[in-house]
Amino acid sequence: MADVAAPTELQVTTGPIRGSRKIHVGPLNVAMREIVLDPSCDEPPLRVYDPSGPYTDVNARIDIMAGLPELRRDWIVGRGDVEQVAQREVRPEDNGQLGPDRSGGVQPFPNVRKQVLRAKPGANVSQMHYARRGIVTPEMEYVATRENLGREQLIGHIRDGQDFGASIPDYVTPEFVREEVARGRAIIPNNINHPESEPMAIGRNFLVKINANIGNSAVASDVAKEVDKLVWSIRWGADTVMDLSTGRNIHDTREWILRNSPVPIGTVPIYQALEKVGGIAEDLDWEIFRDTLIEQAEQGVDYFTIHAGVRLPYIPMTAKRVTGIVSRGGSIMAKWCLAHHQESFLYTRFEEICEIMKAYDVAFSLGDGLRPGSIADANDEAQFAELHTLGELTKIAWNHDIQVMIEGPGHVPMHKIKANMDKQLEACGEAPFYTLGPLTTDIAPGYDHITSGIGAAMIGWFGCAMLCYVTPKEHLGLPDRDDVKVGVVTYKLAAHAADLAKGHPAAKMRDDALSRARFEFRWRDQFNLSLDPDTAEQYHDQTLPAEGAKTAHFCSMCGPKFCSMKITAEVREFAAKQNQSADSFLAASILPHSGAAGEVASRSDDGGGLAPTTTPEAEAGMAAMSDIFKQTGSELYIGAAGRERD
Amino acid sequence: MADVAAPTELQVTTGPIRGSRKIHVGPLNVAMREIVLDPSCDEPPLRVYDPSGPYTDVNARIDIMAGLPELRRDWIVGRGDVEQVAQREVRPEDNGQLGPDRSGGVQPFPNVRKQVLRAKPGANVSQMHYARRGIVTPEMEYVATRENLGREQLIGHIRDGQDFGASIPDYVTPEFVREEVARGRAIIPNNINHPESEPMAIGRNFLVKINANIGNSAVASDVAKEVDKLVWSIRWGADTVMDLSTGRNIHDTREWILRNSPVPIGTVPIYQALEKVGGIAEDLDWEIFRDTLIEQAEQGVDYFTIHAGVRLPYIPMTAKRVTGIVSRGGSIMAKWCLAHHQESFLYTRFEEICEIMKAYDVAFSLGDGLRPGSIADANDEAQFAELHTLGELTKIAWNHDIQVMIEGPGHVPMHKIKANMDKQLEACGEAPFYTLGPLTTDIAPGYDHITSGIGAAMIGWFGCAMLCYVTPKEHLGLPDRDDVKVGVVTYKLAAHAADLAKGHPAAKMRDDALSRARFEFRWRDQFNLSLDPDTAEQYHDQTLPAEGAKTAHFCSMCGPKFCSMKITAEVREFAAKQNQSADSFLAASILPHSGAAGEVASRSDDGGGLAPTTTPEAEAGMAAMSDIFKQTGSELYIGAAGRERD
Repeated sequence: MADVAAPTELQVTTGPIRGSRKIHVGPLNVAMREIVLDPSCDEPPLRVYDPSGPYTDVNARIDIMAGLPELRRDWIVGRGDVEQVAQREVRPEDNGQLGPDRSGGVQPFPNVRKQVLRAKPGANVSQMHYARRGIVTPEMEYVATRENLGREQLIGHIRDGQDFGASIPDYVTPEFVREEVARGRAIIPNNINHPESEPMAIGRNFLVKINANIGNSAVASDVAKEVDKLVWSIRWGADTVMDLSTGRNIHDTREWILRNSPVPIGTVPIYQALEKVGGIAEDLDWEIFRDTLIEQAEQGVDYFTIHAGVRLPYIPMTAKRVTGIVSRGGSIMAKWCLAHHQESFLYTRFEEICEIMKAYDVAFSLGDGLRPGSIADANDEAQFAELHTLGELTKIAWNHDIQVMIEGPGHVPMHKIKANMDKQLEACGEAPFYTLGPLTTDIAPGYDHITSGIGAAMIGWFGCAMLCYVTPKEHLGLPDRDDVKVGVVTYKLAAHAADLAKGHPAAKMRDDALSRARFEFRWRDQFNLSLDPDTAEQYHDQTLPAEGAKTAHFCSMCGPKFCSMKITAEVREFAAKQNQSADSFLAASILPHSGAAGEVASRSDDGGGLAPTTTPEAEAGMAAMSDIFKQTGSELYIGAAGRERD
Repeated sequence: MADVAAPTELQVTTGPIRGSRKIHVGPLNVAMREIVLDPSCDEPPLRVYDPSGPYTDVNARIDIMAGLPELRRDWIVGRGDVEQVAQREVRPEDNGQLGPDRSGGVQPFPNVRKQVLRAKPGANVSQMHYARRGIVTPEMEYVATRENLGREQLIGHIRDGQDFGASIPDYVTPEFVREEVARGRAIIPNNINHPESEPMAIGRNFLVKINANIGNSAVASDVAKEVDKLVWSIRWGADTVMDLSTGRNIHDTREWILRNSPVPIGTVPIYQALEKVGGIAEDLDWEIFRDTLIEQAEQGVDYFTIHAGVRLPYIPMTAKRVTGIVSRGGSIMAKWCLAHHQESFLYTRFEEICEIMKAYDVAFSLGDGLRPGSIADANDEAQFAELHTLGELTKIAWNHDIQVMIEGPGHVPMHKIKANMDKQLEACGEAPFYTLGPLTTDIAPGYDHITSGIGAAMIGWFGCAMLCYVTPKEHLGLPDRDDVKVGVVTYKLAAHAADLAKGHPAAKMRDDALSRARFEFRWRDQFNLSLDPDTAEQYHDQTLPAEGAKTAHFCSMCGPKFCSMKITAEVREFAAKQNQSADSFLAASILPHSGAAGEVASRSDDGGGLAPTTTPEAEAGMAAMSDIFKQTGSELYIGAAGRERD
């Protein structure tokens, strides 16, 4: 294993996405992506949200062995509420060097910090704490610029959507970001020990975000692959990444990922804690878990999934389920609770956990350990009992000014999805919801990115703040590089469909730009404006590889004669030549639409011929039209004719 | 081209889907698929709907050169209302041997019928006509048996779903089918000259159906490929197939497809009519179109897409659109209307078209020639003006006892989908709706099976009767074999998600069976119960190829230690050992859920420690539990332990 992590083996994809360039906006140099369009369309470049970090910046120097620049370091230190402390020493068990199956190893990250940051005694360095004291941090300013994108171009734009009670502003100000964070409706996950991350917000009133899961297991994967998956997933749009590594080398794998990640990283600390006790759930205890939280907080993990809602009394509620407890963390804690027949230490020690979180600004992602694992178990007693408890814990965390989001299902049929969103908003005081799909049917393993993409788009529309992706390998195996990309792109399109339906300002700009490109046969622009230009162009070229086809006014679906878009353009051209309004056109046409019903009625009554009755005026108008039409060149292939005979 | 259609080249996929066998049920030998499960689960085989025809029947002899057996021939002739007539002679222009780009050709189907069937003078052979006269046809009986599947096992089963006013019966009787067809709420498309087809129903109160589009264009594809795509698409679940061939050899291609298709075949006759006039829309006229309808009706086409709602007055309404008119048929007719400045002959001759339809029982699929081609154009004036006219035409067709369904969009953001369904039901008197997606965003070419699968699942839930698939190649190129499969499976899962959400009886049986298999680590059953067993197993084997892994109680996602399902099983096993009810368990636990809120409240008020207060009884109960637990073998790996150390 060791050599796979060697520098020469560590390859990641760099360079811009085709047709795009990295730009930096405003005094904080907020990173965005700009899609440059063909000069013929006379449209400005389109700005899109871009979590890919320096890897897509032609001017950035990437060195995986050194890690990314510390963008936020000065902001953090500048606040004067942190102190430097020696990093907790790495122990063998941190990398799971206990128990069976611990062979092999991973080269430690060469550029580990010896000193880490921690809040000064009594201080609280969470963004929520600043927000509640009225402080607008650079992180909040960064988020405001980042979320706005092209919105300033849309002043006075009429909102078209159904937002189910969200409060999406026409324009995002730093003050708006502060308010949302202060009231717990949004979080900015960024551990003070992860200064490499570019600030982003997760909240119902911001763009819908997506998370990609990576991480190795005792059975498959290795560090080099995981770092590559990290860079690959953010290239295609992952807003946060969770390292769900289990088995060996957890600590070192995480270090490689954190030092090279421009997006917030989340983990499930109980996985590593379990490794520290050789995989025996009953041997877990508070001290080992606490030690793991500090270890990971010092490394810079931005949010922890903690299944503190899996309470002893709820466990029997899962006994009659078709798929019982499907959350790994949930089942581990359930096993612990049963073994000791005690309440979960995650629940009883919750305030002590809060003390750790606030010292590094780690956000809670309260885990839904009792989420349904099948359509049959959706919205059951166990699920909602836990949700109720997560609501209670949210309020406790908020009493400590700690940022919180809530994890959600899972497997839910369409008619039960809205109830999940509504109950979460109500039980958790509008804390951001973060769901896994949900899958809308169980019968399509191999296609669960789609069964879940359906549920994800819907719950995103209803108010879910972040969608955890599902790959085609869900339920079947560990996703490879291709699966990660398919999962990310599927969730990006689901999140965007949700933003569109919510009437999110500027969301529609990209759809309209792409549709114009499509209608005007600007094939390259159509590819470049899509979520995956490489695949779009590759699919096009499978049937029309010739470079000339990139400007052809047809595609292989219909062929030259049949392109409806081409014919429409000709229709439009012809209509324009009449330089008349639609009204005068209607006047000249045989019958106004309002008259059609009556006409049809009488027609179907007598069952007679269908020759429409026309007025002399109408007939005159039609004759005139036909003349003009013939003059403009019989078959209307004006301009296009030359092209077509190529 | 000629040789590609030669017998030796005509290869189609035959044999059962893995883990399944073809069965024939009842006196009419209704074809179904049965998935056989592992004996260990002691569950009966699961019956699933199966449109794949004889191709998946090990006992069937397949001869593409001869075509399929004429299942319905005796039923049709037995009604005594048809006569045999000489088939219209094939003319060169039928295969588009006119104008440019007409080189090459296709071998004619060797087993063409010389004699075809037609209604006796004055007779009407449509299923709707029989239904309205109170006649229950064998076709209706076949449909009833086919739709029921496992429903009889569910008597007294409580409906779980939201059907938005549909009238889904617990059990489908032939009389129910007759009523639905009589009132126009369902259609059974089966031309009397396509006796090879197995009757199926399209209607809001039946299972949601899906359509796959195939067909060559002047640019790509050939007959051998199209016949293969036909068989391939129904293998994975396509309920009907549309032959959208353009360019040359349209007539012969269609003959090959019809004679070998067990599912209804739909076409867009205007495509062939246009070929007959060398591709010049303005040269189209009623006589050529009428001749094409008869030609195709005699061949056995089951439903015609006819864009009779594209009226002259509506064309200017498209002038301001971002993507104008995207329907091929719609744009052809718009061009014709503008050129002649006359009302569409499809509209003015509609009753004459009805006379042809009723003589062969061809169903109308009233085309939405003005459907939106982009998010920007969704639900606009042109779209709904046409829908209003389609409603008028539906009533005219119903006056002739002709079966009708209505085509719908297209590109629609999620918040505008329900309005499409509601307006269609209202405008068209609940005639079946048949939509293309809709795509919920424009920005993901290459993934439009997914952007549209989201919209398809939603509108299917709202009441859409049939979903026209979209493949990954949509907007980019002609789908190949793999694209067809991905499109079909995506739409099958969308249709099934819709049936689930509607609370369709028996739909959930398959989800539950698969979830039980998943929970019990019956990997083979999980694969076989899925929509695509081949892909599911292949994905699983990519990380765990060993045959032993097929029975392993874990997968590569989590590895042996972490499998939550395994741990849950152990938790359940342990709980069972206590042989106590959930209630007594709760009594013994530290606090009932009802008390938790208060506890947390007080806790968060004083901000004190979290040690929960317990009663002596509770403590005693816990102690007892722990003892029993330890006796049953410390770490709970009962039974599974041996396996795990393998």
